[in-house]
Amino acid sequence: MLRTHTCGELRLDQVNQEVTLAGWVQRVRNKGGLIWVDLRDRYGLTQLIFEEESSEKALLEKAETLGREFVVQATGTVIERTSKNDKIPTGAIEIKVKTLEVLNAAKVPPFIIEDETDGGDELRMKYRYLDLRRNVVREKLQLRHKMMQETRKYMDAQNFIEVETPVLIKSTPEGARDFVVPSRTNPGEFYALPQSPQTFKQLLMVSGFDRYFQIVKCFRDEDLRADRQPEFTQIDCEMAFVDQEDILSTFEGLTKHLFSSVKGVELEEVKRMTFADAMKYYGNDKPDLRFDMKFVELNEVAKGKGFGIFDNAELVVGICAKGAAEYTRKQLDALTDWVKRPQIGAKGMVYAKYNADGTIKSSVDKFYSTEDLQAWASAFEAEPGDLMLILSGDADKVRKQLSELRLKMGEDLGLRDRNVFKPLWVMDFPLLEWDEETGRYHAMHHPFTSPKKEDIPLLDADPGAVRANAYDLVINGVEIGGGSIRIHDKATQQLMFKHLGFSEEEAQKQFGFLMEAFEYGAPPHGGIAFGFDRLCAIFGGSDSIRDYIAFPKNNSGRDVMIDSPSSIADEQLTELSIRLAVKE
Amino acid sequence: MLRTHTCGELRLDQVNQEVTLAGWVQRVRNKGGLIWVDLRDRYGLTQLIFEEESSEKALLEKAETLGREFVVQATGTVIERTSKNDKIPTGAIEIKVKTLEVLNAAKVPPFIIEDETDGGDELRMKYRYLDLRRNVVREKLQLRHKMMQETRKYMDAQNFIEVETPVLIKSTPEGARDFVVPSRTNPGEFYALPQSPQTFKQLLMVSGFDRYFQIVKCFRDEDLRADRQPEFTQIDCEMAFVDQEDILSTFEGLTKHLFSSVKGVELEEVKRMTFADAMKYYGNDKPDLRFDMKFVELNEVAKGKGFGIFDNAELVVGICAKGAAEYTRKQLDALTDWVKRPQIGAKGMVYAKYNADGTIKSSVDKFYSTEDLQAWASAFEAEPGDLMLILSGDADKVRKQLSELRLKMGEDLGLRDRNVFKPLWVMDFPLLEWDEETGRYHAMHHPFTSPKKEDIPLLDADPGAVRANAYDLVINGVEIGGGSIRIHDKATQQLMFKHLGFSEEEAQKQFGFLMEAFEYGAPPHGGIAFGFDRLCAIFGGSDSIRDYIAFPKNNSGRDVMIDSPSSIADEQLTELSIRLAVKE
Repeated sequence: MLRTHTCGELRLDQVNQEVTLAGWVQRVRNKGGLIWVDLRDRYGLTQLIFEEESSEKALLEKAETLGREFVVQATGTVIERTSKNDKIPTGAIEIKVKTLEVLNAAKVPPFIIEDETDGGDELRMKYRYLDLRRNVVREKLQLRHKMMQETRKYMDAQNFIEVETPVLIKSTPEGARDFVVPSRTNPGEFYALPQSPQTFKQLLMVSGFDRYFQIVKCFRDEDLRADRQPEFTQIDCEMAFVDQEDILSTFEGLTKHLFSSVKGVELEEVKRMTFADAMKYYGNDKPDLRFDMKFVELNEVAKGKGFGIFDNAELVVGICAKGAAEYTRKQLDALTDWVKRPQIGAKGMVYAKYNADGTIKSSVDKFYSTEDLQAWASAFEAEPGDLMLILSGDADKVRKQLSELRLKMGEDLGLRDRNVFKPLWVMDFPLLEWDEETGRYHAMHHPFTSPKKEDIPLLDADPGAVRANAYDLVINGVEIGGGSIRIHDKATQQLMFKHLGFSEEEAQKQFGFLMEAFEYGAPPHGGIAFGFDRLCAIFGGSDSIRDYIAFPKNNSGRDVMIDSPSSIADEQLTELSIRLAVKE
Repeated sequence: MLRTHTCGELRLDQVNQEVTLAGWVQRVRNKGGLIWVDLRDRYGLTQLIFEEESSEKALLEKAETLGREFVVQATGTVIERTSKNDKIPTGAIEIKVKTLEVLNAAKVPPFIIEDETDGGDELRMKYRYLDLRRNVVREKLQLRHKMMQETRKYMDAQNFIEVETPVLIKSTPEGARDFVVPSRTNPGEFYALPQSPQTFKQLLMVSGFDRYFQIVKCFRDEDLRADRQPEFTQIDCEMAFVDQEDILSTFEGLTKHLFSSVKGVELEEVKRMTFADAMKYYGNDKPDLRFDMKFVELNEVAKGKGFGIFDNAELVVGICAKGAAEYTRKQLDALTDWVKRPQIGAKGMVYAKYNADGTIKSSVDKFYSTEDLQAWASAFEAEPGDLMLILSGDADKVRKQLSELRLKMGEDLGLRDRNVFKPLWVMDFPLLEWDEETGRYHAMHHPFTSPKKEDIPLLDADPGAVRANAYDLVINGVEIGGGSIRIHDKATQQLMFKHLGFSEEEAQKQFGFLMEAFEYGAPPHGGIAFGFDRLCAIFGGSDSIRDYIAFPKNNSGRDVMIDSPSSIADEQLTELSIRLAVKE
């Protein structure tokens, strides 16, 4: 090693020892004849000192040439500092340097490499390797490392076998768009990169692997939104001979283990809620349970009083913000404007303040009597000091709008603490959802999800009402994982494909291998996949997954650091039997 | 769970307990009124018993319908067997079944699902999910699982950070052929799949990650040989502030840890050998050290005696097979034929038997006197009973031929025991190797490998003589891992690209980001990558890596189970701005 110790480990115990450190120059202070250098590595910061009186002149001159981010190796004696720095673990000592070697000089970095940086997003992406030098960024990836190790530790202890499934697989039109890979040796044919190892993990259950997991890259060629990446990582799992309850308890166990081992947080039992209740009470299939503020439906107390907007609405529904009656008119107007923005799309907002003196002041006082408003307050179980906010309109739409308003109020009132974690199982998802664009039903989870037995008769009459054995794990309003009990017999799988609009031929061409496998003794099985990037972000208290990916792509799917994607040579195209359909 | 116990865990202790098992029917024996069923899962085999006298008729009838590989759930009482089977851990008990449920019927499998199967290679690949049901196959993947976990345990304990590097990267013409992925959002441009995360791990060193590892899929679009797969797995590692010695000791540590924890084998210290010595003494840069049989050069004692073939040869070189003097004339002729096959390419073979009586009988007695042959024997340090085998010709070629002969003799004489492990570091590889096809030098390891400082002056005069700071880990004649100390400054990297025939512009276009990174404070660093598939095969005692991959591709790069690669829809091509250059 080019060092005897790291920059994070020396203490008073080592005083008088001769040591060699290597690292990056974080800072140089030159007091003329006395130079301090903060030397940094992944493990910490240690102060080097060069003194005119005791050092050779050449050494001092060399130290004077050091700039930020130079890579140096320094040998010297550990001494006790006269003025100690109790902010860093090595703050009691410094190194009186005897020899200094510049291992590599550095140009002035394009942005400041400290926790607070002056680098903009694009600049930091282009020089990602410098951004990763910042402690706050590196620590996020160290958190990710720890989560990976602890995930595997738990899964291994639970007898899961880690199996690597192939990356070069087969393109299927169902679901999101595939990335494809032209095959040179099979001209005109393509591999696809997996959106998930779904069929392979099911085949492993058919193989009797019993318990499978993998932390695996998956790929989706979608138009990127802020928090999507074309390649992302899943904790992918599958179990045989289980029912839904077994999956929930096993992965509740994983979640608790991760919180406990990585964050020192002991989670309570994970709450459970049906999809129907989540929509009814939170307008959202991933409710943030860090705060209550449940939806209250007001049709009975708010309709028929001559207020046309409510009278004509399918649903009048509101939330009660505890202790927010002090909101000013200006704040309430701003809230009204906020819900009326096109992204939310509400037509307006009604409020009713339950004042501290017991009176109620609403924005629709001319339509509602004091008794009417008291009836609202009872419905909300409101108390003096609370603020009731009410939206109305088409039921599905208004619930979505109110969900956004609820989250905003939670945020504004400081109820969404990043250090509080409220996990939730959302269950009994619909099997199918109607897609306006294609004019047909799509699988809400995926085509391999089993319907609830008692709902199968509804498949023909009312497909949208069929519930699936499907569940999501939600933490703090973020979907962290989702899974289902799978179909494990050919007949049901065929039925499912039929309802998804596959012809028998298409189903056979794309998934014939899976249906055939079901005929050779497939056990009942089910599983789950966690979005690992998002899980890390939740643990780290961030909204963006990008910080938790070492080398992310930007919103156009480019890696601006290596400048990829890029053009390739004509010979490569020829070998692959493809041509560009664009002008270059 | 659909079971209270697995099929591997019940013992006499559980007698009289009511249990529920689930699994696959391995075998049914029907003695009329008495039916035994062997029920199998990943954990073992348990015998179920159905008796006419005590079981309901319906139950017995149901048991009679069971066929091989049916998936069933059985509830009953654990009883002691009258005739115990001490070959299986559950052999002391059986389950007297009360209720039986067929969870899934099974068609007759296309081959026998036992350790010894009648299924041919192709059939087993098409039904890989059934092949994986065989214990011998599943155990290989469980070994792989264990090796993954133990690798991570060691690396984590050594402070390495596991970082996932991107799969969608940039195509570079250096090295093997890339798989490429057309970008939809950047028409006419392509990502490439990584042949290794090389540049990313080096950038992580520039970032100060200090120690990185990853168990990662890599991709190479090569014409497949028997033991190559288009996607394969590496244990990929990199360390900063190290010299070669640190890498060797760290990964010698990993190797020992794996042998100890996975196989219970305590390795001796790993031997070391220069590339030059490996070629001189074994004709091979990955010598199998399970047996000695070193090359002995005979130019001095064999030339100038009138035997034209030797006299005209650049090199006369041989091996001494201990105790093989008993080889018959027929065996020796067969060996001669073997070395003359086109795959080996020798012109002939000379032998000399050192008989038990002290006489020496050679195939060239008419050219060599007894004293001459005694001189050969001395050179070989041969003893009575040994067989000397000698080839001659062009030095490079004859070494390769003799290497093959040495390995064959080792095999024939039973010296290559699969349960003996002889690891070896081969060091000081040449930096460059001449490529006849392209008429230029190529990087023997890769273009980021550093030359030995003292050899840099030779770069212009004698490029082929420059040695690199590069090393391979070889076990039993198989290259398991390879790595190098990297270049970490721009000037040397530019020099290297120049010598590899890159124009400045090409170097900048392809690796500009890396050279720029070197200017911002790159530490000295180096690393290694292990071929994980091959490492698993060595541990499992197999020659083929395919057995250690859950879903391998065949020699044409096809997955015959899912039938991939396959054609994709015209709309997909259009979206990707590409066209086929082949008729479909």
